[in-house]
Amino acid sequence: MALDWTSSERGAVLKEFRPRRTIPADWIPAQAGDLLKDVDTPALILDLDKFEDNLSRAMAVVAGSNLRVRPHAKTHKCGEIARRQIEAGAVGVCCQKLGEAEAMLAAKVNDVLITNEIVGESKMRRLARVALAYNPARLGVCLDNIDIARQLAAICASEQAELDVYIEVDVGQNRCGLSDPQAVAELAAFLHGATVFHFRGLHAYSGLAQHRRGVPERRAAAQAAAQRAAAARDAILAQGMPCEIITGGGTGTLAYDARSGVYTEVQPGSYVFMDVDYSKNERDVEAPLFDVSLFVLATVMSLQQDRATLDAGLKAFSTDMGPAHPAFEGWRVRNVSDEHTVLMRTSDATPIKIGDKALLVPSHCDPTVNLHEWIIATRKGRVEAVWPIDARGKIY
Amino acid sequence: MALDWTSSERGAVLKEFRPRRTIPADWIPAQAGDLLKDVDTPALILDLDKFEDNLSRAMAVVAGSNLRVRPHAKTHKCGEIARRQIEAGAVGVCCQKLGEAEAMLAAKVNDVLITNEIVGESKMRRLARVALAYNPARLGVCLDNIDIARQLAAICASEQAELDVYIEVDVGQNRCGLSDPQAVAELAAFLHGATVFHFRGLHAYSGLAQHRRGVPERRAAAQAAAQRAAAARDAILAQGMPCEIITGGGTGTLAYDARSGVYTEVQPGSYVFMDVDYSKNERDVEAPLFDVSLFVLATVMSLQQDRATLDAGLKAFSTDMGPAHPAFEGWRVRNVSDEHTVLMRTSDATPIKIGDKALLVPSHCDPTVNLHEWIIATRKGRVEAVWPIDARGKIY
Repeated sequence: MALDWTSSERGAVLKEFRPRRTIPADWIPAQAGDLLKDVDTPALILDLDKFEDNLSRAMAVVAGSNLRVRPHAKTHKCGEIARRQIEAGAVGVCCQKLGEAEAMLAAKVNDVLITNEIVGESKMRRLARVALAYNPARLGVCLDNIDIARQLAAICASEQAELDVYIEVDVGQNRCGLSDPQAVAELAAFLHGATVFHFRGLHAYSGLAQHRRGVPERRAAAQAAAQRAAAARDAILAQGMPCEIITGGGTGTLAYDARSGVYTEVQPGSYVFMDVDYSKNERDVEAPLFDVSLFVLATVMSLQQDRATLDAGLKAFSTDMGPAHPAFEGWRVRNVSDEHTVLMRTSDATPIKIGDKALLVPSHCDPTVNLHEWIIATRKGRVEAVWPIDARGKIY
Repeated sequence: MALDWTSSERGAVLKEFRPRRTIPADWIPAQAGDLLKDVDTPALILDLDKFEDNLSRAMAVVAGSNLRVRPHAKTHKCGEIARRQIEAGAVGVCCQKLGEAEAMLAAKVNDVLITNEIVGESKMRRLARVALAYNPARLGVCLDNIDIARQLAAICASEQAELDVYIEVDVGQNRCGLSDPQAVAELAAFLHGATVFHFRGLHAYSGLAQHRRGVPERRAAAQAAAQRAAAARDAILAQGMPCEIITGGGTGTLAYDARSGVYTEVQPGSYVFMDVDYSKNERDVEAPLFDVSLFVLATVMSLQQDRATLDAGLKAFSTDMGPAHPAFEGWRVRNVSDEHTVLMRTSDATPIKIGDKALLVPSHCDPTVNLHEWIIATRKGRVEAVWPIDARGKIY
């Protein structure tokens, strides 16, 4: 292999250039049996004890009732976690995107609801093909527009595919969904009559209600959402059509949704991990206690006087809800940039030296998980398993 | 394949479950020849005319001088773009992470500088192995601590690997790097004497200077950074050691860095794409004009009165510098959530209907690119190529 360094000072691309020794193509930050302190960074760390507590506390809310739990997989994007949620009693999962749904179906989760509208010829055709490919697995999707419903029905007919369909009702999120009960009933009539569709009911989610800080405000927002969902349901029933499922709610309002008498299915997502933002909600002693189970592990890569720089920044945890917080005392975040977090010492509570590992609590779990390839599942400071984040980056 | 739906209402995991028809495993939003309006969404769109203008305007800054350009690949993470930068005259690329450097080397870029410290036994060993595997490609790394330098030298010796090394100088970023010229000279003496290292010079980057809004402030911050770099260099020269390269600077200060008389190499990154945040800098008529070439394409998935919801949210563009901005008149961003952006109509300038495609300008290009798998390279409304983002998610 001839190589002329002089001439390559400008224009440094080699044509016949192969690594002499193989480097593993996939970087995996840990393997089962490793100590937490030996995990390479940045890495997403799951505390299995806390995670399992969160799973069982969510199921305890519905114990003895007919209420179904369909956790939202947009949070974790991980087939292994979906399977554990189902083993704990969930009926299946929610997804927000077709790409997520495909990843969950491929991970052998056989009941998936896309809690979102799918628009655009190519994506609708792919939706139909996915439904057909994984039949008899159950695949559902939301609609809020009759023209789109007609287009999807035509595509499903041409692909010989069938779909579960739900109407999205705007119950306070002010985003997608119909707010007028009569418009809901009209769309229901079309869906009910389309042979390619199985009309299941309503999707009624108020994300804004989840993060109301005070208990009374959060409870009131959940009640208002349930009342709007009930009004839409009643408009359908008044036309003599069935409306079997009312699905919605989230981690912040789970206890209220469960007791509403309206929802037949709840969709908590963040409860498995929790985060700094959810920790700001006032605690309701009547609601289940979920604890933070998800962390980002970073390494101290530079130390100058009272300033420690970590090797994880906003490409390793999302900052839309603020920076990640140190899971230890004596240091505060001064600055987050793309690949760095700068900590300043506030006390001597936690001595730090260069090369040390530091655990951070993400401020918002869902978009943080989307930045990683692996979840490192740990118990009492040791790695128990490494799970791929199957739907990581599947934003389509 | 026996399937009991009744018993699977709770516990919906199938063991013997295979898709009946194959769905393409990789979702690729477009192919060459497609019209922009037919690209599936969310997708990252590059305007090639503007991108090529940006490439040549950066090179024009150094025309007729000995100044080298080493663009930062943390921005684009794309081998194809790195190769085009080098064809335009760059000497190689910068990376921020070892995983990025591996992706660039694998993409046949044979001169890569990691403008960052690599700390931790496993990652340092991988660094040494990568250097050996791709030898004679040039791989450099930064250091700011003599203990870490000793550890890396021992690892390189045990792996029979050699590395280019640079000292990071803190020239105003207050993050990594040494600020005391005497400490720089002491570290240089060690690096100069280590047989596994080739001591090349100083890495001196002030990210904060790039985003000073006013021209006088930005110019002054760049000058201050160059002066600090010069002081560190002079401390090394005073010990009789060479200090060949002073590398640093960025898109916002490129013209000032080039004229500083201190830098021998500049590292602009964002100039290829630009973004909303850089657009807020006051324009200096003496500096090169870079224009926005990067967009996120989204689909209008729901339309209710004056409210249009797009199918791209903060998993499709970063919001650390604020929301993405519509690239069209008459609509403003009301809210961004994980998978949605809600636009409100402010005038009749741009009529929107459900299913329409909408172009958004990211607020911060680097972390936005990191969320995508593909760059859709377009020219005059038509797809010319689809480039993989080779180092996407390589945050380690």
